[in-house]
Amino acid sequence: MNTTSKERAQGPGTGAEQRLKDLGIRLPEPPEPFGIYAMSVQSGSQLFLTGMLPTRGHTPQSVGRLGAELDADAARESARVAVLNALALVRKQLGSLDRVVRIVRLGVFVATVGDVREHPKVADGASVLLQDVFGKASNPSRVVVGVASLPLGVPVELDLIFEVTNSGGPDGPTEG
Amino acid sequence: MNTTSKERAQGPGTGAEQRLKDLGIRLPEPPEPFGIYAMSVQSGSQLFLTGMLPTRGHTPQSVGRLGAELDADAARESARVAVLNALALVRKQLGSLDRVVRIVRLGVFVATVGDVREHPKVADGASVLLQDVFGKASNPSRVVVGVASLPLGVPVELDLIFEVTNSGGPDGPTEG
Amino acid sequence: MNTTSKERAQGPGTGAEQRLKDLGIRLPEPPEPFGIYAMSVQSGSQLFLTGMLPTRGHTPQSVGRLGAELDADAARESARVAVLNALALVRKQLGSLDRVVRIVRLGVFVATVGDVREHPKVADGASVLLQDVFGKASNPSRVVVGVASLPLGVPVELDLIFEVTNSGGPDGPTEG
Repeated sequence: MNTTSKERAQGPGTGAEQRLKDLGIRLPEPPEPFGIYAMSVQSGSQLFLTGMLPTRGHTPQSVGRLGAELDADAARESARVAVLNALALVRKQLGSLDRVVRIVRLGVFVATVGDVREHPKVADGASVLLQDVFGKASNPSRVVVGVASLPLGVPVELDLIFEVTNSGGPDGPTEG
Repeated sequence: MNTTSKERAQGPGTGAEQRLKDLGIRLPEPPEPFGIYAMSVQSGSQLFLTGMLPTRGHTPQSVGRLGAELDADAARESARVAVLNALALVRKQLGSLDRVVRIVRLGVFVATVGDVREHPKVADGASVLLQDVFGKASNPSRVVVGVASLPLGVPVELDLIFEVTNSGGPDGPTEG
Repeated sequence: MNTTSKERAQGPGTGAEQRLKDLGIRLPEPPEPFGIYAMSVQSGSQLFLTGMLPTRGHTPQSVGRLGAELDADAARESARVAVLNALALVRKQLGSLDRVVRIVRLGVFVATVGDVREHPKVADGASVLLQDVFGKASNPSRVVVGVASLPLGVPVELDLIFEVTNSGGPDGPTEG
């Protein structure tokens, strides 16, 4: 249930970049800011991402709230799209997804109307893809809540904190 | 208002495990995952818990939203139940609650309908128990919001980050 | 987009305290707790603040929800008032705002009713002031969501994490 770095011993070729290739996933262009903030901030070994939305460019790929305009399957797919944006952003910031040691926190905000209870199903749209790419031992703690509304009218927003290392990427980027 | 480790000098026998015993509290079985995530992740000295719910096993002990199906007293009791789950989980992960140095963050999500303003009263159901167990000097920063809905229909979800030490538990567990 | 300490090289006299003076801003009295929690907790180099509200003393300066009782301009101003409280609190806790290395995370919870999409405009009320005081290179990652209700009926609550240094303040406070 709780995982430590020791449990993550992996041979060469089993890193996140390789898994992404094996899954046949091509990442989109990384998201750009809509406002006055950084897309990510690294504090010590923790990389905090700005809230990831199901967008392409500045256009939402899905609009609506669970329990009103959208069903759980559509919201779940939105969570997956938001993860693809997160992966593109992390690769851009770190040079390689292989610099991710683990995912510390996945927060999933689902826009809901009424007495909705399918939040975990929606959140799993993000969790399945993250596990496919980073492996089970890197799974995050997870906080899932139903909110009243989200920016741009999207159904899902992700709050992600990664633990990263300054070595380990194929191109060996180093920072202070 | 702000507390440092220096202010926490405590004699033997006044640790969290002893206080729990003095309070006559027996912890429940620690919660198990409902999905694809870890119940907790340690990053440096910070232990992030998955969102804690007022559940026993996979069954919610309370269902409803403040301002609709539930009143503030019932939601407050739910916050307390969620803390008991958190304590059980932390003890399981760390071996002993005495390895908690302080609580860094307590986030309280309260499911609400309409113009509700009793969130702090609900959140205090968590805060009182945490203070009773860990002492005033370990009190967390707190973020309390009213959300539209929560997983399983529960009225309260807790977001907890603890600062932990690798020594200090009675059975002296050590990691990395 | 991502910023590192290296990009923040600043000459003397360009720190946050000086900028605040240049902007002609006088900070209010720092907020006091409404309940059983700490106003801030430092964990390593991260300073977590309790959720900052648009209050003076224990009195809300604005009440209402976006999409119902308030419009985006009013909510935006509330976000600015909450930042002033945050600045007053950080100065009190650290001795000087110049000990802030960067802002790691800005979470903005906006109370909303219905299909609201102006959250970023509201959040910018906080972001503009933070950038004015700490500079662009210190801009945080940002997570903005629309919630159902907030404590005291306020329209905005801020979740702030700062990275701080033990040196750098004019009065040179040092801790452990």
